[in-house]
Amino acid sequence: MFKETNARSLFKGISWRILATTTTIILVYMFFNRLDLAIIAGIIETILKVALYWGHERVWHKIRWGKKRIEPFNLWFTGLPLSGKTTIADAVFKELNKLQIPIERLDSKDIRDVVPDIGFSRKDRNIHMKRIGHLIKTLQNNSISTVASFVSPYRESRKTIREMVKNNIVVYIKANIETCKKRDRKGKYEKATKGEYQNFTGVNDIYEEPQHAEITIDTDKLSVDEATKIIVKYVKKNYVK
Amino acid sequence: MFKETNARSLFKGISWRILATTTTIILVYMFFNRLDLAIIAGIIETILKVALYWGHERVWHKIRWGKKRIEPFNLWFTGLPLSGKTTIADAVFKELNKLQIPIERLDSKDIRDVVPDIGFSRKDRNIHMKRIGHLIKTLQNNSISTVASFVSPYRESRKTIREMVKNNIVVYIKANIETCKKRDRKGKYEKATKGEYQNFTGVNDIYEEPQHAEITIDTDKLSVDEATKIIVKYVKKNYVK
Repeated sequence: MFKETNARSLFKGISWRILATTTTIILVYMFFNRLDLAIIAGIIETILKVALYWGHERVWHKIRWGKKRIEPFNLWFTGLPLSGKTTIADAVFKELNKLQIPIERLDSKDIRDVVPDIGFSRKDRNIHMKRIGHLIKTLQNNSISTVASFVSPYRESRKTIREMVKNNIVVYIKANIETCKKRDRKGKYEKATKGEYQNFTGVNDIYEEPQHAEITIDTDKLSVDEATKIIVKYVKKNYVK
Repeated sequence: MFKETNARSLFKGISWRILATTTTIILVYMFFNRLDLAIIAGIIETILKVALYWGHERVWHKIRWGKKRIEPFNLWFTGLPLSGKTTIADAVFKELNKLQIPIERLDSKDIRDVVPDIGFSRKDRNIHMKRIGHLIKTLQNNSISTVASFVSPYRESRKTIREMVKNNIVVYIKANIETCKKRDRKGKYEKATKGEYQNFTGVNDIYEEPQHAEITIDTDKLSVDEATKIIVKYVKKNYVK
């Protein structure tokens, strides 16, 4: 969040003065047809009014009225591991950041890096979702929108998020499991198949497809750029006015 | 976070116009000693410039320059159960809220209500602290200050918070354990003594006193009002300019 510096108020005063004094000079000249008087009036007005404008700005800076709270949204990317959630969410975040709205990126991996003891059982995942929901809600209290990417394989945990936050947009990143395996350079699917990972979604844990996703992206048919455009367009149309 | 409405820009234009046109009328009158011309000039100027001012406001609303990011802080209240952390933190939060800075209240109880499976062992508490640290850090990324009250009995977990967040202000709410017990209408201390609670700080779990608290409040000597004043004064002096 931002506050207006004194310098900003002063420069606004100067930029306004150039616009306004030019108008005044033209007006005085049209009335009296005397350029000398018009210019002297312009000079006196300039000096006096830059100072007045600056004071006027500082007073209004303190007034709350007419400052409208920005309505936040939550983009929730769900899908199989390596379906492309993080890549697309990153691209969408980059685009939305250009709109000068307060927005935060939340990725499963980053959060699990900070707090590594979360676990992957159904119970652990559900508790984890509740915490993420609380985080998003707290950010939303402060008008901050979120771009969140989490496997979130269970309907119940996605429902928890939907109930906790407002303006929730579920983006289902749909990918054939064979496609995900092809993208898997670190061999995570292979390790899970060998039993090295427990509760690995798509191998030894289920992924329950979303039934009410606001947006479904079929990554077998759409490129990252195309997907990004669809999602950004949806957000702009519904939440950024 | 806020955005400026069209109406606000228009009303700023009108309020500025009253100020500016009065000046113009006085100037024209001083120059030509003719009130009729001065008033006509004033009227034309008014109509033209309210529209110009409004346009000027909308353009500046889009310009980032001179909007300074607000520097967030974290007030961290620590102390024994029932030492008065929540009461004082609530009062401080109420006062700071009046300063029109973005600020969020985080209380141990509220968070444990949302996610009840946190636990009270040393390991559980430390993981919990890391999560809270992550939450505060995310809020700080968005210029949001925090008033947090957590027993946080271990030095290592308070150190974790200090390392994760910026402008950390530890407020140690010091209270004699006998005083805490007297305040304990729900009989929590008694239950803990009977063994009904495990890891209850002050009974069957230790509280490690802070060694580097920025502020220490002795609740045996200071009232809630006095404590609030000291803390708010500290914040105003160091972080709200």
